Amino acid sequence: MKARVHITLKNGVLDPQGKAVQTALTGLGFGGVKDVRQGKFIEIELAETDKAAAQAAVEQMCKTLLANTVIENYQVELVG
Amino acid sequence: MKARVHITLKNGVLDPQGKAVQTALTGLGFGGVKDVRQGKFIEIELAETDKAAAQAAVEQMCKTLLANTVIENYQVELVG
Repeated sequence: MKARVHITLKNGVLDPQGKAVQTALTGLGFGGVKDVRQGKFIEIELAETDKAAAQAAVEQMCKTLLANTVIENYQVELVG
Repeated sequence: MKARVHITLKNGVLDPQGKAVQTALTGLGFGGVKDVRQGKFIEIELAETDKAAAQAAVEQMCKTLLANTVIENYQVELVG
């Protein structure tokens, strides 16, 4: 089973990396870029076949390693 | 209009960051983690309201700045 995890900064948390991308895009001539937020995307291939167990395991992984839950949100999506 | 962009390493390209996460997860006691691939997730808020024009603009942004197309794939998804 495959898990797709999105880790994004919480609203209100400054995103200097996103701001840098926004400035670079504007500098390259792309008009109308109002905001850019950059996050992480992690694909995890699991041996687990039970959907509920896989979901619980990946959420635990997010809490302990993948996301900094003080400033980041995570979203887990299971595929296949 | 909002664009969600996924940037992932192409198949066959080594992903040391993903491997490090995999090793860390296994070390933390998470069994059955067969593979981890890490990519980027970028949310772009655009002033553009035409879907086709927005798609074209974001694809151009990916080609010129956001993705290294030699080793990375990008996927653009428009929301709202």
